[in-house]
Amino acid sequence: MSTIIDTLVPSYLSGAWVSPENPTRVTEVADSSTGEIVATVSTDGLDLAGAIDYARDTGQRNLRELTIHERALKLKELATYLGEHKDELYEIASRAGATRRDNGIDIDGGITTLFVYSSKGRRELPNGHVIIDGPTEVLSRDSSFLGTHIYTTLPGVAVQINAFNFPVWGMLEKFAPSFIAGMPTLVKPATPSGYVTAACVRLMVESGILPEGSIQLISGSARDLLDHLDHRDHVAFTGSAGTAATLRSHENVLVNGVRFTAEADSLNAAILGADVTEDSPEFDAYIKAVFSEMTAKAGQKCTAIRRAIVPAPLIDAVATALTERLTTKVVPGDPRDPAATMGPLVSVEQRDDVAAAVEKLIAAGGKVITGGADQLDGAFFAPTVLTFENADADAVHDVEAFGPVVSIIGYSDTEDAIRLAARGRGSLVASVITHDPELAATYAHSLGSFHGRLHFLDRDDAKTSTGHGSPLPHLVHGGPGRAGGGEELGGIRGVKHYMQRTAIQGTPNHLTAITGEWVRGAKVNKVTRADVEAGTAEHPFRKDLASLKIGDQFASDLRHVSIEEILEFAEKTGDTFYAHVDEEAATANPFFPRRVAHGYLLVSWAAGLFVEPAPGPVLANYGLENLRFITPVTYDDSVRIELTAKRITPRVTDAYGEVCWDAQLFNQNDELVASYDVLTLVEKVNTTYANWGR
Amino acid sequence: MSTIIDTLVPSYLSGAWVSPENPTRVTEVADSSTGEIVATVSTDGLDLAGAIDYARDTGQRNLRELTIHERALKLKELATYLGEHKDELYEIASRAGATRRDNGIDIDGGITTLFVYSSKGRRELPNGHVIIDGPTEVLSRDSSFLGTHIYTTLPGVAVQINAFNFPVWGMLEKFAPSFIAGMPTLVKPATPSGYVTAACVRLMVESGILPEGSIQLISGSARDLLDHLDHRDHVAFTGSAGTAATLRSHENVLVNGVRFTAEADSLNAAILGADVTEDSPEFDAYIKAVFSEMTAKAGQKCTAIRRAIVPAPLIDAVATALTERLTTKVVPGDPRDPAATMGPLVSVEQRDDVAAAVEKLIAAGGKVITGGADQLDGAFFAPTVLTFENADADAVHDVEAFGPVVSIIGYSDTEDAIRLAARGRGSLVASVITHDPELAATYAHSLGSFHGRLHFLDRDDAKTSTGHGSPLPHLVHGGPGRAGGGEELGGIRGVKHYMQRTAIQGTPNHLTAITGEWVRGAKVNKVTRADVEAGTAEHPFRKDLASLKIGDQFASDLRHVSIEEILEFAEKTGDTFYAHVDEEAATANPFFPRRVAHGYLLVSWAAGLFVEPAPGPVLANYGLENLRFITPVTYDDSVRIELTAKRITPRVTDAYGEVCWDAQLFNQNDELVASYDVLTLVEKVNTTYANWGR
Repeated sequence: MSTIIDTLVPSYLSGAWVSPENPTRVTEVADSSTGEIVATVSTDGLDLAGAIDYARDTGQRNLRELTIHERALKLKELATYLGEHKDELYEIASRAGATRRDNGIDIDGGITTLFVYSSKGRRELPNGHVIIDGPTEVLSRDSSFLGTHIYTTLPGVAVQINAFNFPVWGMLEKFAPSFIAGMPTLVKPATPSGYVTAACVRLMVESGILPEGSIQLISGSARDLLDHLDHRDHVAFTGSAGTAATLRSHENVLVNGVRFTAEADSLNAAILGADVTEDSPEFDAYIKAVFSEMTAKAGQKCTAIRRAIVPAPLIDAVATALTERLTTKVVPGDPRDPAATMGPLVSVEQRDDVAAAVEKLIAAGGKVITGGADQLDGAFFAPTVLTFENADADAVHDVEAFGPVVSIIGYSDTEDAIRLAARGRGSLVASVITHDPELAATYAHSLGSFHGRLHFLDRDDAKTSTGHGSPLPHLVHGGPGRAGGGEELGGIRGVKHYMQRTAIQGTPNHLTAITGEWVRGAKVNKVTRADVEAGTAEHPFRKDLASLKIGDQFASDLRHVSIEEILEFAEKTGDTFYAHVDEEAATANPFFPRRVAHGYLLVSWAAGLFVEPAPGPVLANYGLENLRFITPVTYDDSVRIELTAKRITPRVTDAYGEVCWDAQLFNQNDELVASYDVLTLVEKVNTTYANWGR
Repeated sequence: MSTIIDTLVPSYLSGAWVSPENPTRVTEVADSSTGEIVATVSTDGLDLAGAIDYARDTGQRNLRELTIHERALKLKELATYLGEHKDELYEIASRAGATRRDNGIDIDGGITTLFVYSSKGRRELPNGHVIIDGPTEVLSRDSSFLGTHIYTTLPGVAVQINAFNFPVWGMLEKFAPSFIAGMPTLVKPATPSGYVTAACVRLMVESGILPEGSIQLISGSARDLLDHLDHRDHVAFTGSAGTAATLRSHENVLVNGVRFTAEADSLNAAILGADVTEDSPEFDAYIKAVFSEMTAKAGQKCTAIRRAIVPAPLIDAVATALTERLTTKVVPGDPRDPAATMGPLVSVEQRDDVAAAVEKLIAAGGKVITGGADQLDGAFFAPTVLTFENADADAVHDVEAFGPVVSIIGYSDTEDAIRLAARGRGSLVASVITHDPELAATYAHSLGSFHGRLHFLDRDDAKTSTGHGSPLPHLVHGGPGRAGGGEELGGIRGVKHYMQRTAIQGTPNHLTAITGEWVRGAKVNKVTRADVEAGTAEHPFRKDLASLKIGDQFASDLRHVSIEEILEFAEKTGDTFYAHVDEEAATANPFFPRRVAHGYLLVSWAAGLFVEPAPGPVLANYGLENLRFITPVTYDDSVRIELTAKRITPRVTDAYGEVCWDAQLFNQNDELVASYDVLTLVEKVNTTYANWGR
């Protein structure tokens, strides 16, 4: 009993590290290489229902006090902190069989995910609490009734149930998007490597960076956790298809609206394109890709290549080249031994599962080229290559050996290769190795709907590719069917999984207040050139972020357009497009009445009409969005501009922020000539030019 | 038996109208008003598995032969055809209890949905088979390895199981997005009004507009339909939460990857804001909204208002005003009677269900103000208003009376109103009636995550609002938790439900071929000004859509930038912003080295550098997207442009199409100065100026 108490991994619940006092149901965890007991876990008597309430209450409240950008910035701080302490994690993770390279994927990969989410959260999302989805929809003729969509934070807890193979990345890749979304996490790692996750959570808590309640940890069985969840909550599961189905059958998922998403292992394929020969650089790239996926994490990756689908005449060549590389490069061993290049499987139970799967593959016609089913060296399992004469053997497409095992099958033509890949019934990822872009397109268009990710490799990206098996924070991870049907990551797409999309209908004033973005038709604080000159009102460009409000508007006078100016602009810029200079050709054009002003001339004049030239808080115009020319402007028309502060985004790390201005250019008949967004950088407080005279 | 055979509604399966020959399990359907048997249905012996294969094979193949725009255009043609024949549907639907107003919602609403999807599909989607999702992600330092996301059509059948209340709209609102996505529909309407759906499907088939296999109909029990579905297929269910749970428990959903989405009725709320008094126009708007939701379709709408949440002191005033309106305006009766303003419920079974629900509400403390549980006039049910002293009575938030019934409860303050609305445990929609935009924002931010749609009403949109209960094709429909957790419609969002999102990784050439959109770094067909002048190559602006290819590029020479030109541009346009004209102030700016060229000057020059001035197939520059100024350009720098055909979108209804050009402006050191997309209209075949000399 003393061993159990000494190694008991605590849980972190309701703001405290807790362990059961007299646990009766205890699970022991062995060092993958040595078999020594390194940890025990139990959740006997722990208050999981209380932890859920704590997340919904304290966690939600504390996260809501931060804006999206503030949360994103904390992820960067956390990533930096974990980076400084990662050696501790490396050491602990080696007990679970992880080599230095494996830890690079798991620990450094997790930290990188935090950095990417921190950056994307601040670059791609507003600095508030609500995310707008898509454009405003005009739902009434007079524009008094509009529609839009917003995302708001789900009001419950994000339960994240993770697999054993990536104890750190597996947690952080789910934590990062849910944290930015403002949803507190309750993480439940798989027991065989849960002590590594616990060590990481301990660092996260000790860092003091995260608001209390934003992360909790269950070390051990989740017990009746799902019984306490409801429509406010979210469960993201990674693991076997069987467990996914069990969780998905829970009444709270079926009936009571718990959002459930699963990412299960799958029979991922790597297809060698019909354009590739043994001599081409793509052949080498293929062998290296399959090799890498077999040996990284000893093949214990949901994304690893299980099926090598190659032109039938190349089966032997692929098997030979692969076997040679495996034989010369793989040194299995305890990860603490510097000579080892591939660690053990996580446990002897896992080794038994892999051996049993290999036996099934052999029974289905698999010929062992190297390795095999009969391996009994602790949790170690040598790389195993099988070839099949019958590419359609069911086991190849059904049985997953979750270790360093690959089945090589042959195809007759591209259509056959596509058919075989689809027999995986939905996979996380497939690689296609081809230097023919049109062939790549054929594969993508037919196999896209069976995959969460497709990875194309040739001589041009063989060296720069991040690899078949690596989910990236920028891209969606997960796949249809057999792969669980879930979706994770994908940059900001992943954040939205922890939010509810809601259609909003109302007046322009309603939508402006709700979205925090000025909507056309909503009330404005209008200032004219005359007001500015009379000194009765301040030009919005004179306002820093501390005083500028959405709806602040500058409205210019009309400016006359002459043919001389159009012709001069054509001459000076060199833009002598016929519609501006050739009356006859312009008149023949279906869109123009006669010669018209250049669109670029109009937006240049618009700037001249709205700009406040003196130094002030507006630092730069850094871009333009959504410019549309609507009504052509011909000579002797006039134009005027209305420029309205639409969106204000102060940066959390700079003394300035972005202001997006809605620009509407009208003609003398109040017809809309051009519509666009002007993007500027504006100081939070007028500093740079504070002492400059006007 | 002769009645049964005479009225038997056939199914439309595998390209033919079919009826069971000797049905044993037959369901009879009565006229809602008269009780007369108007239809019988049976699927005994029909080959549903064959219909699924037919959809996956013939349906998929025929739909794939059309581009997204071609499919969208067919929806417009179909909408026009149905509009011409809608009187037939009106007449048939009246047997199911639908008044003229109800048919306006169901039949005209369905036709409108087709029109909106047709328009959105052509305006917002590419004219191909693949939809790109989001920007390209650069995944390697040298940009040789990139990522993006595409949507491709799901490879199976879209099974659409619909509720009885909207036999036409309920079908078309699901059919439209799945058809645009390229996924064939197998529709299974609810039996009580399935004969109306069958009449509409008959028109759709007779129109000859739709490719064979794109629509099939099951009249009667779906039997073992789900047993035949797998990871390729999609089920969209509308109906009770109980049936949704049963379907969701099917092994093919739990284990085998059938995509399942549900839209269930819910306890939708209408909240009267704390700013509203009996005298304000919002009070009237509130009464009218509740009245309308009670009486349209006799309250048989998933979105109808079930809970009226009002300031506690206003309970009696609301109950009185509502009852007065109901008493004076509602004339229940057979819809074929012109005097009738509200029809019967769909069946006497439905009437019994509603009466039972009202009894539960009374037992929970509901005080009947008008109507009541004890109604026995065929399928007719008089509008029923209940008030509750205890706003927290469970039944108010749990028991749905699917008819003209509303419960009025009082709240103490806004926080209390929010809490009460959230007690619905997830709803399709809530209305908030308030003239205070900040109050609207408070409601939206707290109730968003409990709702699929929030509808804000005040004096400004009371007349133009499309109403609390109307899902619109532009906006998402569906809601979390109790409401089923699904999402439908929402414009193009709804199309994507029938497609798989897949991350794509590869080289620029891979991505260009796969997406059909030129990606930076992919191969180009480069033409310089010198080539054009030497007559050795054609300027891309001389190419019509028949000859232009993505990757066609024009590269200009360098153009020198002088301070005189900057100052002259400032003077001519009026844009005398200090960064362009004041050396000292410009130098003090954190982003500029000294005085810099206007961004507008640079893009104007860029046009001068790339434009081919003579009349030709390029008709107009209609806009600009994603313009970013990256490296400032100061005097004595030089700039040059690379303009590359990025995306080509021929219109299905016009002689021209859109060409989006990637524009990159570089300086003399090949640093990127500005990056943007130029949007032009180009003729399919050079026609307008075919005979004009250069």
